[in-house]
Amino acid sequence: MTTLQFALDSIGRGADELIKHEELEARLRLGRPLRIKAGFDPTAPDLHLGHTVLLNKMRQFQELGHQVIFLIGDFTGMIGDPTGKNVTRKPLTREDVLANARTYEAQVFKVLDRERTEVRFNSEWFGKMDAADMIRLAGQHTVARMLERDDFAKRYAAQQSIAIHEFLYPLVQGYDSVALKCDVELGGTDQKFNLLMGRGLQEHHGQPPQIVLTMPLLEGLDGVNKMSKSLGNYIGIDEPAIDIVTKTMKIGDELMWRWIDLLSFEIGIGEAAQLRTKVESGQSNPRDIKLRLARELAARFHSTSAAEIAVAGWHAVVRGEGDTSLLPLSEIAVPNAGLRLSALLVAAGLATSNSEANRKLKEHAVRIDAAVVEDGQQVLVPGFEGVLQIGKRNFARVRLIAAS
Amino acid sequence: MTTLQFALDSIGRGADELIKHEELEARLRLGRPLRIKAGFDPTAPDLHLGHTVLLNKMRQFQELGHQVIFLIGDFTGMIGDPTGKNVTRKPLTREDVLANARTYEAQVFKVLDRERTEVRFNSEWFGKMDAADMIRLAGQHTVARMLERDDFAKRYAAQQSIAIHEFLYPLVQGYDSVALKCDVELGGTDQKFNLLMGRGLQEHHGQPPQIVLTMPLLEGLDGVNKMSKSLGNYIGIDEPAIDIVTKTMKIGDELMWRWIDLLSFEIGIGEAAQLRTKVESGQSNPRDIKLRLARELAARFHSTSAAEIAVAGWHAVVRGEGDTSLLPLSEIAVPNAGLRLSALLVAAGLATSNSEANRKLKEHAVRIDAAVVEDGQQVLVPGFEGVLQIGKRNFARVRLIAAS
Repeated sequence: MTTLQFALDSIGRGADELIKHEELEARLRLGRPLRIKAGFDPTAPDLHLGHTVLLNKMRQFQELGHQVIFLIGDFTGMIGDPTGKNVTRKPLTREDVLANARTYEAQVFKVLDRERTEVRFNSEWFGKMDAADMIRLAGQHTVARMLERDDFAKRYAAQQSIAIHEFLYPLVQGYDSVALKCDVELGGTDQKFNLLMGRGLQEHHGQPPQIVLTMPLLEGLDGVNKMSKSLGNYIGIDEPAIDIVTKTMKIGDELMWRWIDLLSFEIGIGEAAQLRTKVESGQSNPRDIKLRLARELAARFHSTSAAEIAVAGWHAVVRGEGDTSLLPLSEIAVPNAGLRLSALLVAAGLATSNSEANRKLKEHAVRIDAAVVEDGQQVLVPGFEGVLQIGKRNFARVRLIAAS
Repeated sequence: MTTLQFALDSIGRGADELIKHEELEARLRLGRPLRIKAGFDPTAPDLHLGHTVLLNKMRQFQELGHQVIFLIGDFTGMIGDPTGKNVTRKPLTREDVLANARTYEAQVFKVLDRERTEVRFNSEWFGKMDAADMIRLAGQHTVARMLERDDFAKRYAAQQSIAIHEFLYPLVQGYDSVALKCDVELGGTDQKFNLLMGRGLQEHHGQPPQIVLTMPLLEGLDGVNKMSKSLGNYIGIDEPAIDIVTKTMKIGDELMWRWIDLLSFEIGIGEAAQLRTKVESGQSNPRDIKLRLARELAARFHSTSAAEIAVAGWHAVVRGEGDTSLLPLSEIAVPNAGLRLSALLVAAGLATSNSEANRKLKEHAVRIDAAVVEDGQQVLVPGFEGVLQIGKRNFARVRLIAAS
């Protein structure tokens, strides 16, 4: 396999669409570092694994020797919603933007190589443009083609209003590629239209059109819906390592292969195929592969040692094979007079109601530090620390503190 | 009749649409001079009577004590055609704009009262706006409502491309009314959509919405088509007084009433109605009324005395009642060796071909200085000056000069 073929395979892995394959090949043959752009909202980020699909692809480009541009679209963010209809979309100030950028950096450099990343703000060039420049930019595209964008077409057909400035934003995004002289732009599948915008504008400005690479949206823990905060089917990249491991270990086998394609660097294309064959022929246990993926993800967002501790913790709680002291500790604030055990089981998230807790107690299914307890009326006071357990697999290591 | 009723009648005379009548009435009751805007292209003007319909209405407002704003839309003119498709619409320079403005002033102050006219350029406020301001302005209107504009709707339906900046221009025009705090905007019927734009934007900016008054397009000499340079059915305001009179005298009677409504100040609404009754009952000759209109127009664009001379000339040539020396003199360049009479009749515009000229000569229909001539072969040389005539009504006063 040639280096070029390796690069093409890496870049294509897990991708949704590549426009155009032959252009990417020609551009890679130039032998210089390509300029790879991906655009991000200037709002405060709180990234989950779904967002890292794009970051991972950026990282792959970096590992192939290319330059990544992390573009923060602050220009439009500082405008807010000019229709005045969306009161929650307030204009960001310069300070907001910079604060959010710092939050981004703290998160994204868990994936990206800082040395090969340019963090840019599009206010850099749009801040210098005047009203006439914006009109000239608007002259470079037609209403009909803009209305072809999926969401615009649907809203127009449904007689939902589209404010005219919404037609300008894809042009702004497209012009960013001109200003940055991008070779490649990455984005989610839903961004395809906007990414293509850059191609037309670059040609208009005498630049070779950028290659467009779209990445699919990652399915969440349920394996069905896209990962999202609002659906609760996510793993946040700032979650404790034990949670990353525990949640990852619960995903279905089919989803595991998908996650490997979109999230793993350690399990390459070839190995993933081999592993799949082995699992299908019964030679490998998918749980072992899942654990490898879980360890890789925990290590990426924390550290190798934190990942090892988390895996050990997972063994402890789920398989009864390890040390429960490795479990993450939750502090629970209780009244000075303490809390009844049944209520504490609810507070610790092990039961959904007092009556469920009491039923479990009657079934002898509740343990404190491995010893069965039956008395739900017993009161635990601030200072208590121990491992609560319901059934075989539900643990919580808690420390009670006094509610202030 | 109250002063208010007089004002309402004057303003409404000849108008196409008034939006809204009750708003105009309330605004007039304020008792202060209203701010009346009309927008003009920044391209070099060469006005004909059709353009003066709007100027006349502006003048009427001035005579009612209001302030007129002659707005030159130089901001978009200096952008040109950003699509690059229209090579003839080159961006104007600041110098072009100022030179064109001077040409405008030389023409429009034949109608407008200089004292009550503010000449403004919209680059004054748009030149200070940045790209973000333009986006904010674009946020104040929707795509669907913009596509309701007649020409956009037709082009969209016919799949003719509409560049996105074309959606911004009506907003620019509308914002001019905000910047100028207009009470009333005037425009041609075809401008209705753009004039209404100002209302919405003014409300958005906390101003009372301007009243919109549209004026019809003037029918040209043929009484059928709109007056236009390209159709040749026009009277330019810089044409010689004799031409203004002669052309006006040729229009049909029905068109005369229309022109009186749209072009005459001297013949008021009440008198026009009386005159019409008299003509219909056979008490008046419409030609006399037409002559009054012709004299008024010639005087407006030249002077009272020039108008009198022109009317006398018209009597001379058309009715044989006057002095042909009052006819306008055309200089015709001929070879040193001279030109045959038949060819000269063609050169003077009295015959369309040599053969027509020769036929008229044979019919004894050609005269030089009132004497019948038959010999088409006679040669007239540089230095000749006289009145050529074919039939009863076609005259040309010519002087032959040597072609250099």
